[in-house]
Amino acid sequence: MEGGEQAQNKQIVLRGFIVGTPKETDMELKVGKAKMKVVEGSRSVLIKNLYLSCDPYMRGRMREYYQSYIPPFLPGSVIEGFGVSKVVDSDHPNFKAGDLVSGLTGWEEFTLIAKAEQLRKIQSEDIPLSYHVGLLGMPGFTAYAGFYEVCSPKKGEYVFVSAASGAVGQLVGQLAKLHGCYVVGSAGTKQKVDLLKNKLGFDEAFNYKEEPDLDVALKRCFPQGIDVYFDNVGGAMLDAVLVNMRLHGRIAVCGMVSQQSISDTEGIHNLFMLITRRVRMQGFLQSDYLHLFPQFVDKIIDYYKQGKIVYIEDMNDGLESAPAAFVGLFSGKNIGKQVIRVASE
Amino acid sequence: MEGGEQAQNKQIVLRGFIVGTPKETDMELKVGKAKMKVVEGSRSVLIKNLYLSCDPYMRGRMREYYQSYIPPFLPGSVIEGFGVSKVVDSDHPNFKAGDLVSGLTGWEEFTLIAKAEQLRKIQSEDIPLSYHVGLLGMPGFTAYAGFYEVCSPKKGEYVFVSAASGAVGQLVGQLAKLHGCYVVGSAGTKQKVDLLKNKLGFDEAFNYKEEPDLDVALKRCFPQGIDVYFDNVGGAMLDAVLVNMRLHGRIAVCGMVSQQSISDTEGIHNLFMLITRRVRMQGFLQSDYLHLFPQFVDKIIDYYKQGKIVYIEDMNDGLESAPAAFVGLFSGKNIGKQVIRVASE
Repeated sequence: MEGGEQAQNKQIVLRGFIVGTPKETDMELKVGKAKMKVVEGSRSVLIKNLYLSCDPYMRGRMREYYQSYIPPFLPGSVIEGFGVSKVVDSDHPNFKAGDLVSGLTGWEEFTLIAKAEQLRKIQSEDIPLSYHVGLLGMPGFTAYAGFYEVCSPKKGEYVFVSAASGAVGQLVGQLAKLHGCYVVGSAGTKQKVDLLKNKLGFDEAFNYKEEPDLDVALKRCFPQGIDVYFDNVGGAMLDAVLVNMRLHGRIAVCGMVSQQSISDTEGIHNLFMLITRRVRMQGFLQSDYLHLFPQFVDKIIDYYKQGKIVYIEDMNDGLESAPAAFVGLFSGKNIGKQVIRVASE
Repeated sequence: MEGGEQAQNKQIVLRGFIVGTPKETDMELKVGKAKMKVVEGSRSVLIKNLYLSCDPYMRGRMREYYQSYIPPFLPGSVIEGFGVSKVVDSDHPNFKAGDLVSGLTGWEEFTLIAKAEQLRKIQSEDIPLSYHVGLLGMPGFTAYAGFYEVCSPKKGEYVFVSAASGAVGQLVGQLAKLHGCYVVGSAGTKQKVDLLKNKLGFDEAFNYKEEPDLDVALKRCFPQGIDVYFDNVGGAMLDAVLVNMRLHGRIAVCGMVSQQSISDTEGIHNLFMLITRRVRMQGFLQSDYLHLFPQFVDKIIDYYKQGKIVYIEDMNDGLESAPAAFVGLFSGKNIGKQVIRVASE
């Protein structure tokens, strides 16, 4: 069982379960060793991580709560997340050294994947490799499944997206425009609002932090009301949207997961509008729609190659930068999809 | 234009827009006159009201709010609601004296209906006439449309109904049982809980006023969780249900309309469960499903005649009793569907 070359393996470890907003000190850098060969007969795969994804849902795995759709991290263990990686060694028939893969991996330089079936082989094609954790990964697919399958959009409808420049929101808005909708986005800085209007093709956008009254802002952008709300934030924005929904409107509930830990939320007060306007409000996870993943990849690659879609990334360099990048998600520090470049391709 | 016999016409008038919980003094009895003949060429119909319906949604029409699905009452005018009536005189080709009808009418002895098209001719058959404002009327149809069209129920699923002995809830529970579901109801008195278990066929029931913790009560009744929640109340019960929903559960939002006027509601805190459990929450109004009304009537009459469905009414005698009966809805005084008998058939 023993033997073989070893390499240094830097890792980001969760120190313990956390309450409130994540801090950099909730995580720490450790340096271990990784064997460069897999055990024969193990069907496992050793990968070198190139890009790691920082996603808000990961906050949900940092608390001691076992009723969620995904179990918590183990304190003291390496943080797990989506990544793009290169196969170093493989005992699995589907993978060989040099293959590029995406899937769940560790926040470390090298990861031994026991269940290689969850890895997806990827081609580099004409699309940046890192897009496989963003545009072509879980966030992009969340946008795709949520918009087409949950929002039931129709051409000409009025669509609102919160956290609109984020990993999910930026694609929702562009898909909605391609679908013939009128699209407005909200974000938290002037720079993001400019991106929405000038780069991502939104019809209108506003900085929610500069609006004294969200209801007034929404009525200004949607004098006729909102047909579809792609909700990435919950809270006060959701409450303001509820009173601006049109008859038979739809709300796709996507991004409140990061609020799970906030025990003293303000609460949503305007749910009676669901009745008066006959609104459907639906929570979803992209993982329920995986049968659509192949068509999603084809369609998005096609749009991208035709120049109909762009994707904004916020790239941090080095595994050491991962904790700060992750923490930054919760103050809106990232502009676009937050990615960590661990190693060059 | 003038001439013809006149009769005394007692009326219940809304004194002014109200805030908070309705009080008897928000309404007053007036005695006017009604002509016993309709004007020729008017296509109007004069009806004598036999039964009037007290429904919580009417509270929504007592406030000065014009954005709802139905306009407010005019202060100083006769209250409007569903009723069962007999035609006294008609200038409309579809109706003749002696016909029994149901539809929107006034809280008075005689009502002149200008738009007779909204009246529905009814047969007395073997079903109590008053059921046409309950089991076979708007509340019954709300239960029917909400359960079959919004809840998407499947045999063997776990169904929870709040305000379960009320005009809507009691039918939802019985339809769910006939559909092969496990059904639990909540109500606010021991007597109502007994009715649910012993007369209405619910598998289990509890008095929410005697439960120190609604979450504990729900977990006791649904150790495996809730697939379908027919929500007649909103508020704290909805919040407790949210954390007990099963994967891909559905919540039909029906009864928060009466809370519209409560400006300082506590708020709903557990909406993130919509995501983790992928729950669809949908507001609805029966009026969106009127194409199903004929099949509803056939099916419910059939069930009733086969003894598969019962319906509990709370019958008050005399128009004078209407304000107290209406006010009683908001403290749960009524047991079953609240009806006012204005005149004998």
